[in-house]
Amino acid sequence: MSGRLSIVGLGPGNTELITPQVTRALEEANDVFGYVPYVARVPDRVGLAKHASDNREELDRARSALAVAASGRKAVLVSGGDPGVFAMAAAVFEAIEDEPHWHELDIEVLPGITAMLAAAAAVGAPLGNDFCAINLSDNLKPWDVIAHRLRLAVEADFAIALYNPRSKARPEGFGKALKIMLQAGAGERLVTFARNVSRPDQSLSTMQLSEAEPEMADMKTLVLIGSSATRRVGRFVYTPRRIE
Amino acid sequence: MSGRLSIVGLGPGNTELITPQVTRALEEANDVFGYVPYVARVPDRVGLAKHASDNREELDRARSALAVAASGRKAVLVSGGDPGVFAMAAAVFEAIEDEPHWHELDIEVLPGITAMLAAAAAVGAPLGNDFCAINLSDNLKPWDVIAHRLRLAVEADFAIALYNPRSKARPEGFGKALKIMLQAGAGERLVTFARNVSRPDQSLSTMQLSEAEPEMADMKTLVLIGSSATRRVGRFVYTPRRIE
Repeated sequence: MSGRLSIVGLGPGNTELITPQVTRALEEANDVFGYVPYVARVPDRVGLAKHASDNREELDRARSALAVAASGRKAVLVSGGDPGVFAMAAAVFEAIEDEPHWHELDIEVLPGITAMLAAAAAVGAPLGNDFCAINLSDNLKPWDVIAHRLRLAVEADFAIALYNPRSKARPEGFGKALKIMLQAGAGERLVTFARNVSRPDQSLSTMQLSEAEPEMADMKTLVLIGSSATRRVGRFVYTPRRIE
Repeated sequence: MSGRLSIVGLGPGNTELITPQVTRALEEANDVFGYVPYVARVPDRVGLAKHASDNREELDRARSALAVAASGRKAVLVSGGDPGVFAMAAAVFEAIEDEPHWHELDIEVLPGITAMLAAAAAVGAPLGNDFCAINLSDNLKPWDVIAHRLRLAVEADFAIALYNPRSKARPEGFGKALKIMLQAGAGERLVTFARNVSRPDQSLSTMQLSEAEPEMADMKTLVLIGSSATRRVGRFVYTPRRIE
């Protein structure tokens, strides 16, 4: 029997946003690994072993899933959203980098609906022109890198999706980012705070960036800042395709 | 009877990447609108009227779908990938901007797996750190804007997803973009050409950007350029989460 590791995305929360490909991988799995709230979203089933672990233990979790796959079992590693966007896929490839015996394992990455796509859809089409995605919570990169990227993103007039705007490790992240974007001249841009997107308690709030407050973003919020062209039409927010 | 317009994403091609939410909208639809090859992906069904139109007729197509929804029918407007990423959602909001009688329509956007997520998953995790997405084909914005954004994206050390690298309207797009990124110092970065991603004839090709040629990207190719940290591990390409 040959094992397999599937690194899958559960989407932002609504079960109707989980792809059939991911559902099938979960149905075929012997073992599921992941952060506690994501593993909890996988239905219990006879023959399925669940291995939930704490946040900030990504590398250990990746190694455990790899070891189980190497033993011949079908392991699934779950992320919220998409596994390749600020989630577990990169951690798995980090884990195998110094372990050549894992390079030949059957490893697959199955994409998911990442939070920024669901948030954008909920509010309209703010990502309808060029955009970028920046992870504010990551405690694995210096703040200077984040600040540099934020300034250039404003200068490039990208719409900007901010992931993890307020984490335990960096609760002040969004407040600092806000200050940088305002200094870079983005005060008149529209910002949408999308909390618990796609879930029953989803909330959406849009305003000018100059009216935003640091505490409007928490750990369950995806922040979408528009480009200079992003605007409201009726109850929607969108970025036109045309730039004059 | 009250109508509804659902603007939905069919994902990159594999039917297993269509969300159940989108499948349900298609099952409930009276009318489906879209570009010919996307409408062809929707199964025929008694009671479903299909309205396929040519590329570059986005605004007319959006208006037709809006008019049908306003008449009380359930209309679905299909895009490949995600409808909010360089696709039909922005065109719909443009269409209603000067038509206040359409503002109160029941309009929803249902997200999909956009090409860059599927391409990234197929090759590993090149979007594992901050990234941006730039549309090269759009004939609705000046080339100067694209060039400016490309230079700043390299300076920010984002991974970069290039959509529509070679379109009928702008066949030289990727060649010009390549030159700009090389001049900006990105020659040693890894680039992956992902063609027909998620389909049976998917092809993936990774090399240094300095080795890339303009004709390696066609209309069915998504181009993923890594950050300076993006690297190979075994048969995969990934961007580490950690930046020193």
